[in-house]
Amino acid sequence: MSVNGVRVHEKVLTLDTMNPQVKSVEYAVRGPIVQRAVQIEKELKTGIKKPFTEVIKANIGDCQAMGQKPITFFRQVLALCSYPDLLEDSKFPEDAKARAQRILQACGGGSLGAYSASQGIEMIRQDVAQYIERRDGGVKCDPENIYLSTGASNAIVTMLKLLVSGEGACRTGVMISIPQYPLYSAALAELDAVQISYYLDEDHCWSLNVNELRRALQEAKSHCSPRALCIINPGNPTGQVQSRQCIEDVIRFAAEEKLFLMADEVYQDNVYADGCKFHSFKKVLFEMGPQYSEKVELASFHSTSKCYMGECGFRGGYMEVVNLDLDVKAQLTKLVSVRLCPPVPGQALLDVVVNPPQPHEPSYSTFIKERSDTLSALAEKANMTQEILNQIPGIQCNPVQGAMYTFPRIHLPPKAIQEAKEKAEAPDMFYCMKLLEETGICLIPGSGFGQREGSYHFRMTILPPKEKLMIVLAKIQEFHQRFTAQYS
Amino acid sequence: MSVNGVRVHEKVLTLDTMNPQVKSVEYAVRGPIVQRAVQIEKELKTGIKKPFTEVIKANIGDCQAMGQKPITFFRQVLALCSYPDLLEDSKFPEDAKARAQRILQACGGGSLGAYSASQGIEMIRQDVAQYIERRDGGVKCDPENIYLSTGASNAIVTMLKLLVSGEGACRTGVMISIPQYPLYSAALAELDAVQISYYLDEDHCWSLNVNELRRALQEAKSHCSPRALCIINPGNPTGQVQSRQCIEDVIRFAAEEKLFLMADEVYQDNVYADGCKFHSFKKVLFEMGPQYSEKVELASFHSTSKCYMGECGFRGGYMEVVNLDLDVKAQLTKLVSVRLCPPVPGQALLDVVVNPPQPHEPSYSTFIKERSDTLSALAEKANMTQEILNQIPGIQCNPVQGAMYTFPRIHLPPKAIQEAKEKAEAPDMFYCMKLLEETGICLIPGSGFGQREGSYHFRMTILPPKEKLMIVLAKIQEFHQRFTAQYS
Repeated sequence: MSVNGVRVHEKVLTLDTMNPQVKSVEYAVRGPIVQRAVQIEKELKTGIKKPFTEVIKANIGDCQAMGQKPITFFRQVLALCSYPDLLEDSKFPEDAKARAQRILQACGGGSLGAYSASQGIEMIRQDVAQYIERRDGGVKCDPENIYLSTGASNAIVTMLKLLVSGEGACRTGVMISIPQYPLYSAALAELDAVQISYYLDEDHCWSLNVNELRRALQEAKSHCSPRALCIINPGNPTGQVQSRQCIEDVIRFAAEEKLFLMADEVYQDNVYADGCKFHSFKKVLFEMGPQYSEKVELASFHSTSKCYMGECGFRGGYMEVVNLDLDVKAQLTKLVSVRLCPPVPGQALLDVVVNPPQPHEPSYSTFIKERSDTLSALAEKANMTQEILNQIPGIQCNPVQGAMYTFPRIHLPPKAIQEAKEKAEAPDMFYCMKLLEETGICLIPGSGFGQREGSYHFRMTILPPKEKLMIVLAKIQEFHQRFTAQYS
Repeated sequence: MSVNGVRVHEKVLTLDTMNPQVKSVEYAVRGPIVQRAVQIEKELKTGIKKPFTEVIKANIGDCQAMGQKPITFFRQVLALCSYPDLLEDSKFPEDAKARAQRILQACGGGSLGAYSASQGIEMIRQDVAQYIERRDGGVKCDPENIYLSTGASNAIVTMLKLLVSGEGACRTGVMISIPQYPLYSAALAELDAVQISYYLDEDHCWSLNVNELRRALQEAKSHCSPRALCIINPGNPTGQVQSRQCIEDVIRFAAEEKLFLMADEVYQDNVYADGCKFHSFKKVLFEMGPQYSEKVELASFHSTSKCYMGECGFRGGYMEVVNLDLDVKAQLTKLVSVRLCPPVPGQALLDVVVNPPQPHEPSYSTFIKERSDTLSALAEKANMTQEILNQIPGIQCNPVQGAMYTFPRIHLPPKAIQEAKEKAEAPDMFYCMKLLEETGICLIPGSGFGQREGSYHFRMTILPPKEKLMIVLAKIQEFHQRFTAQYS
């Protein structure tokens, strides 16, 4: 190999010799558009003039980066656990001190700095189990079925890793929704499993139709061995909240077709629309009676990163497994033990999330106020986003029933599509990149999540503070009109 | 399938259908012996009588679980970052406040709760780069080559994942020492790569001999494609510290044989023996001149879990890549982005580790005292462990030059070996399990790390407090004599 005429040592590790499965991974949420956004931020800092003064990152569900305040009680407990000398400090409320002491007593050497059990601290797993029982109206939860994790992502990949086997036409197939959160497609590519795409129904509020599951499964059976079905509810990037009926249908389908269910429920507190309610797969499964509850294998996932806490940086989370074969469970425990343990501060945080201040405790009223302020602000922004976007000619969006995103359809002029194709870019990538360069607004093109051929979308978070969100929406409107005019 | 005559639903995910590579993973550090130890602890709690009153876990390098105190300054900064209201508190020293403010300014939304860049917070990567430059006597380090990680384990697996490709006789081969830290064998099994074992020389203080590397490589070439060489220095589980000469030899070997070097240097501050000194692979590589420093591909790993900080629970760490192909680097960045980011509290901790109090700052003297107290206590225990173990007939051990472990050879009577084989147990597993049941001391058998056929060892940490360590050593002596007598 030679560069500028100089002979260069051939590397051991090159694009040609590296792991081809890693090469095939794509992950749009932190892809080229976000890299360009970071670059533009640096250009602004060095004084380069732009038609805007700041980059607004509406590309990722990063609540606190967008100004959401952490829950005071949670942070007090974390500070107390980090530096236990503060337990003597009268400025901290007694309930925060009691929680911190209880967590520290469950840590090796009474310290966040010790490894925990690989499955997570036992006491915290018990607290999680009680939280799930309360959430699910008393349906039993065994702490032995709880695995604490490094965010939900890590647990999802671990579960997929267990499920993957076979070669050629026997390769494991995993059903994922389109649009999807690209962690799923990335993990399947990395694990060399087959992605079985089922489409959500955009015309019906991104709902999930079991006939579409059936279609996708039938088509896939010729070239892989379908073994798992992944559901994201409330939906990312599509913001729908599944009805109880739909969840029942999905469970029945999984039972008939012998599919392992994976329920990504990290947005379980983020439900805004009237008439919508979060139903956990676990609860519905158990309410359907023993022919389902003793049979269907389920893993469900939750995280400290979303909902009203938005503590993404702590990488806390858990997975509950239901009806998992006991030998496989031992294998799962072995697998997680190789990485030693999930971050202990994230475990401590999860503990206070599942065991927050109670009505008789001093921090209760502040906690309730902070939580409901955050959730009602999100509900307001969910509604506002949908209303304003739907006023823009050429943009159509479904209600944001839950989660933190809108995924509107954008109609692009044929000339724009043509120009994008000439540049070998997805048309909605071309659109989003232009939006970024002209307005500083960073969104993710729908092609990063998957969409029906010939339709174009973007994902935008509803997280910016209300005033900023209004500016963002106004800028998108302006841009979309200009873009449409330019290419008409 | 039927259990007790009752027909049981056949599961989707069973030992037969699960990922066979995951099934082949072994990880002794948290294996059956540790599970039994946890059980025994519970039995003690419920009042079951044992010949001991507590389980002593000398199986894992879990410093703070064994009573090591965290560095005050680090924990103050973490508390301040977790709950920034404390920045107003006069009880915290100004240097801790300044560090915390600087870290928070580098976080999204000024909060530990925001995601960071997937490669890690830029300012912290700059601080790491400066730390490496100081450590390596001025050898340049580019922050763009630093990847913050979730402990070192996560970065090691990520790097191995990039390196693995091919099938059959073209499968990637990775050279690892025997004895090894079983993260390596576990990751290679999971990735379906070929483990190429090279033996450390027990008769010469577990030193690494390049002739042995050559032998192992030649033998492996017939059935795989060797591409990487992993070194742990200071050694785990063997406690040796590599000489500068040896590191040069290894680098020359890697260059000749076109191997990607992976240097696990997480014990870089844990060097105790007179005449021993830590030399980083990076520094030696650059001192060998451009024919090496511009050519040999190297990834080196460090962590916040060991040394004098021992903050295992925070899962902080970093990797530095040298001479990595730029296209591969882009692939690495993409791969880490799928998991979003390393835990931000661990990143904050890493920042203070690489940027500790300076002589003019108020926390300096306390920091220096705490650090040197911890390191000198470890040095004393390293020495004591070796001396006492070597007094036991039938046990021989090399000096603990560095790291946190001793890996003594134990001579087992043929009758004991016979009985273990009848139980289908490795003889040293049989020994360690008996030791646990009779004394409550939890060690890991040498078979979990690999050893020469017919030799037996255990790994024991030097971490228990001095008084407890002396009791542990006395109990091992007693047990070993009893065991030997029983089976003679």
